[in-house]
Amino acid sequence: AKRPTLQTVTLIPGDGIGPEISVAVMKIFEAAKVPIQWEERNVTAIQGPGGRWMIPPDCKESMDRTLIGLKGPLKTPIAAGHPSMNLLLRKTFDLYANVRPCVSIEGYKTPYTDVDLVTIRENTEGEYSGIEHIIVDGVVQSIKLITEDASRRIAEYAFEYARNNQRNSVTAVHKANIMRMSDGLFLRKCREVAEHFKDIKFTEMYLDTVCLNMVQDPTQFDVLVMPNLYGDILSDLCAGLIGGLGVTPSGNIGANGVAIFESVHGTAPDIAGLDMANPTALLLSAVMMLRHMGMHDYGKKIETACFDTIRDKKVLTGDLGGQSKCSEFTEEICRRVRDMD
Amino acid sequence: AKRPTLQTVTLIPGDGIGPEISVAVMKIFEAAKVPIQWEERNVTAIQGPGGRWMIPPDCKESMDRTLIGLKGPLKTPIAAGHPSMNLLLRKTFDLYANVRPCVSIEGYKTPYTDVDLVTIRENTEGEYSGIEHIIVDGVVQSIKLITEDASRRIAEYAFEYARNNQRNSVTAVHKANIMRMSDGLFLRKCREVAEHFKDIKFTEMYLDTVCLNMVQDPTQFDVLVMPNLYGDILSDLCAGLIGGLGVTPSGNIGANGVAIFESVHGTAPDIAGLDMANPTALLLSAVMMLRHMGMHDYGKKIETACFDTIRDKKVLTGDLGGQSKCSEFTEEICRRVRDMD
Ligand SMILES: CC(C)[C@H](C(=O)O)[C@@H](O)C(=O)O
Ligand SMILES: CC(C)[C@H](C(=O)O)[C@@H](O)C(=O)O
Repeated sequence: AKRPTLQTVTLIPGDGIGPEISVAVMKIFEAAKVPIQWEERNVTAIQGPGGRWMIPPDCKESMDRTLIGLKGPLKTPIAAGHPSMNLLLRKTFDLYANVRPCVSIEGYKTPYTDVDLVTIRENTEGEYSGIEHIIVDGVVQSIKLITEDASRRIAEYAFEYARNNQRNSVTAVHKANIMRMSDGLFLRKCREVAEHFKDIKFTEMYLDTVCLNMVQDPTQFDVLVMPNLYGDILSDLCAGLIGGLGVTPSGNIGANGVAIFESVHGTAPDIAGLDMANPTALLLSAVMMLRHMGMHDYGKKIETACFDTIRDKKVLTGDLGGQSKCSEFTEEICRRVRDMD
Repeated sequence: AKRPTLQTVTLIPGDGIGPEISVAVMKIFEAAKVPIQWEERNVTAIQGPGGRWMIPPDCKESMDRTLIGLKGPLKTPIAAGHPSMNLLLRKTFDLYANVRPCVSIEGYKTPYTDVDLVTIRENTEGEYSGIEHIIVDGVVQSIKLITEDASRRIAEYAFEYARNNQRNSVTAVHKANIMRMSDGLFLRKCREVAEHFKDIKFTEMYLDTVCLNMVQDPTQFDVLVMPNLYGDILSDLCAGLIGGLGVTPSGNIGANGVAIFESVHGTAPDIAGLDMANPTALLLSAVMMLRHMGMHDYGKKIETACFDTIRDKKVLTGDLGGQSKCSEFTEEICRRVRDMD
């Protein structure tokens, strides 16, 4: 049989527990014989000519070539004076859609069951524009920037996503009753795009109402699309419903196939290097990546092994309620992956 | 015995179910022999000289005299072209603190128990500044305005509130990692005020983290203070945890004792006039009002009768899981109030 050519993926292990959960993912990918090879790159803030903050050139170069990245957590001290590296990565590669599926995990008990929704967050503008001014002493303004192009683009992404993933409805989340012009523009674009997707049900809802309804009955939601900050909030809220950031994947998608998949939990410096971290979020992000790359079978296999391990409850890391080490949890998933052959 | 002098309260019954839940509150106040008299006023949008939207002069005049208002829901169609009357009321009387206690209600089952927290929302600026521009075609900005004065004022209110209500901690909720200048200013003022309240524990937390932690374990929170929009979101989220807007009170507090208490649910036009509405949110808002006026005993009595009725489960409106009419639920509370004499 002909050996498949290996596709290259840029791996950014990140800080704190990042390296060890990256190793876990690599081991599981190896066990599953996924035909990709990793190209490891570090991301630290560097200042280019003119003082502009940028990501290291060798990481940029790698991503420009591979188009696909997998990223662990990066520490971002406010005090450091440079922008969040997570945000800089999204910006550098114009990763305009932040996609976070939230699906109840069998065997991991929370007050909610049957959650199955996806938040799709505009990832480039809005409250994250970074434009702020001091008007006079003691009076500050931050600018929320909403553009027609970015709004249309994210709306289109959401509807395409719904269609390609057999989902029935898209809800636009907004506060156009308050921010009539900016959220109004966002909402108008969603409505316009909805016209072209008659097979997908379109609804609109105030952000506060979504939050209220979400904690009362999350099963009523399907695909949600929203401006940047609302996505930041809602995606964390939804993650909380199914067990937190330790088990939720995330993808940042750009044009022409460029994408970075990442775990959105922190670097957990207190347990870094102690073989205690839970690699699930990064692993499930890597599964999203495989699907993005068209490797559905590998994705399914790894996902099944991961969920089976959690459902089985015998080998779990501490945060999942068990007493196993990261390496033991990883090995258990590898074993199940191998057994599927 | 000398008859106590009656204090006057401005009553704004509001739209939809507003009038019938207002009648319910008035009946219960009568049963409890609360020494206040109501002065009813309608609030509709009117345009003053120069086209400025304002509340009707007779309502303004009444509030200026009584200083205290109780308000049912007001309809605010976006399409109407005028600003939300709820917001206009907050603005007209500079009601800078929006206070929403969220306490689990015994007998009303939700996935959460022992919730006991208060959201304190800056009510005059932030994302609600109303300042928006079209920069060029297809590019819109909304301005979030944060001032030193309003930030200090709300922080002081939150700490005073904590101290006066035997609460132990205040958490400032922010996104100063993203909006470094505006949320940064807000946060700095909270820190400064915290210095003067050494008896109250002060913590700071990102809004997304609060949302995540809130749905995982709301019992870890006590008093939360935050800019306008974050308060809009979090207060609805928290209301959802204990049963929704039908059972949560709200107060809008200004300087020198001025305050308007309101139910924050909608006008429910579908059931208006059918004697099906649940008056609990307005009633508990009226109880907050009594405490604000120093009438703690009356407040306690009515609150107890209301909670006893809910715990007892025999006479409940439809939304609370029962089959009784609004008037029957009201009469049951009146009966219990009378029995306490
Ligand atoms: C790390 C931080 C800047 C980021 C954000 O605010 O977007 C994070 O909360 C997220 O959701 O990815
Ligand atoms: C009615 C609406 C304008 C208001 C708001 O957004 O503040 C409401 O949601 C609230 O929380 O009081």
